Amino acid sequence: MSHEVDVVRAVADLRGRVRYWRDQGLGVALVPTMGALHRGHMSLIAQALETADRVVASIFVNPIQFGPGEDFSRYPRQEAEDAAMLSKAGCHLLFAPQVAEMYPDGFATQVRVAGLTEGLCGAARPGHFDGVTTVVAKLMLQVQPDIALFGEKDYQQLAVIRRMVCDLDIPVSVVGVGIVREEDGLALSSRNAYLSAEQRAIAPALYRTLCATAEAIAAGRPASEACAAAARTLVEAGFESVDYVEAREADSLAPVEIPVRPSRLLAAARLGTTRLIDNVALIPAA
Amino acid sequence: MSHEVDVVRAVADLRGRVRYWRDQGLGVALVPTMGALHRGHMSLIAQALETADRVVASIFVNPIQFGPGEDFSRYPRQEAEDAAMLSKAGCHLLFAPQVAEMYPDGFATQVRVAGLTEGLCGAARPGHFDGVTTVVAKLMLQVQPDIALFGEKDYQQLAVIRRMVCDLDIPVSVVGVGIVREEDGLALSSRNAYLSAEQRAIAPALYRTLCATAEAIAAGRPASEACAAAARTLVEAGFESVDYVEAREADSLAPVEIPVRPSRLLAAARLGTTRLIDNVALIPAA
Repeated sequence: MSHEVDVVRAVADLRGRVRYWRDQGLGVALVPTMGALHRGHMSLIAQALETADRVVASIFVNPIQFGPGEDFSRYPRQEAEDAAMLSKAGCHLLFAPQVAEMYPDGFATQVRVAGLTEGLCGAARPGHFDGVTTVVAKLMLQVQPDIALFGEKDYQQLAVIRRMVCDLDIPVSVVGVGIVREEDGLALSSRNAYLSAEQRAIAPALYRTLCATAEAIAAGRPASEACAAAARTLVEAGFESVDYVEAREADSLAPVEIPVRPSRLLAAARLGTTRLIDNVALIPAA
Repeated sequence: MSHEVDVVRAVADLRGRVRYWRDQGLGVALVPTMGALHRGHMSLIAQALETADRVVASIFVNPIQFGPGEDFSRYPRQEAEDAAMLSKAGCHLLFAPQVAEMYPDGFATQVRVAGLTEGLCGAARPGHFDGVTTVVAKLMLQVQPDIALFGEKDYQQLAVIRRMVCDLDIPVSVVGVGIVREEDGLALSSRNAYLSAEQRAIAPALYRTLCATAEAIAAGRPASEACAAAARTLVEAGFESVDYVEAREADSLAPVEIPVRPSRLLAAARLGTTRLIDNVALIPAA
């Protein structure tokens, strides 16, 4: 039976634990999460364990990255199950702070990345990425890990975090980890739990459509045309609405019509009140 | 003869030097400056040398903290003289990056403190403190010192930086160092070099008026009344205009009418195109 993961809730305790490891010359990885862990998170933990001697996972449903009409209050919270999964995976420490530990009275600072945050999910979720960059900067400076791992499912988030870490000279290596999918292609997400059986049956159309669209673009179809067609396909498949289907350069997220550099096809679409996102690589046209 | 201070211009070199010290278990202090060093800066260096084993001074005239109509281009630049002063003082390393090293192409991140930045100098200099917090966060994360020292002359700046460091969990202790003054009371400032002989003769009225006003408030005069009188006195003394004279709580910078907690009297006034700032402690009324 695996050792039970230790849980700390105060930054001072977290730092004490990390300092103890540092004094032994051990390398440390951070996997920031909002909990409701699934195999996608576990692949981050597994990769962290391969790279570093000690792995800290954080679970914090970060209020400042949710907009007024969003799902902050109903976001799934299941710390006991999460801790059991982390224990089984061999994670060394779980940092699970309360909101008051992260944002005490008088908190007034925001970290903001311009440009990269403005389109895609940033358009539908104003302020979302400011909340993400602020909490990720805090977590990185609380833990001071060598590396921090993020899933590529939140591809724009990953690009924004890379930009922030580079711009602010945060001494942490950011590692992106590939998307983990269900057998039918649906990208794992804590929000999949919101889906009804009927919606769950429709959901894999998102990945299927992205793959077909990426192939069409690789075959030479202009991205704007292919993406417009993809949005129609998603609505026909049963999605209520499509926030975006867009081709972007992999690092800068600059719009792409005919990919010549590494690029990405990204989409967000809604099934009822649930917003699903996904993305795939775009192979530059021959 | 004192050892000449080493100068590095790249973050990688800076970090290499600090890592070498860290490996020997040495403590490190950072004194961020915009150069044009005077005895005020030297008191920061002296205090840093008392507290830490190694002292890094930075000189960087930070473009993003100057507004469009401000003095970025004419701000005094005299690195050779500055380096000589730092050498004489026993400073161990000078970090003097170019703008492109601090803000390479694609730079897009801003650190912003709300509230504290909004009145006083923030009112007259929109965006100024965002530029300050962004560059100070960068410098702290580039050097990763144990302590960073700032002069109390820029009192609001010090309060804003304390807030940012606390909010983002930057693992650095912020130390405020008392104002150094000329014999006639004028607070030392690189911008004093802009003053004509006539303006220089008027300038000490700023400190004199603050002292008299603080005494009046300590004697029970309401701050709003005393500050309004102080502004009139400054104009009568020859200042072109007064940006503000205000009583504020020492940490929160909340407005104060009758001081009961540690408070500060702060002012900014203009002599020609030169903007002078100063502040003094307010003793709570008996």
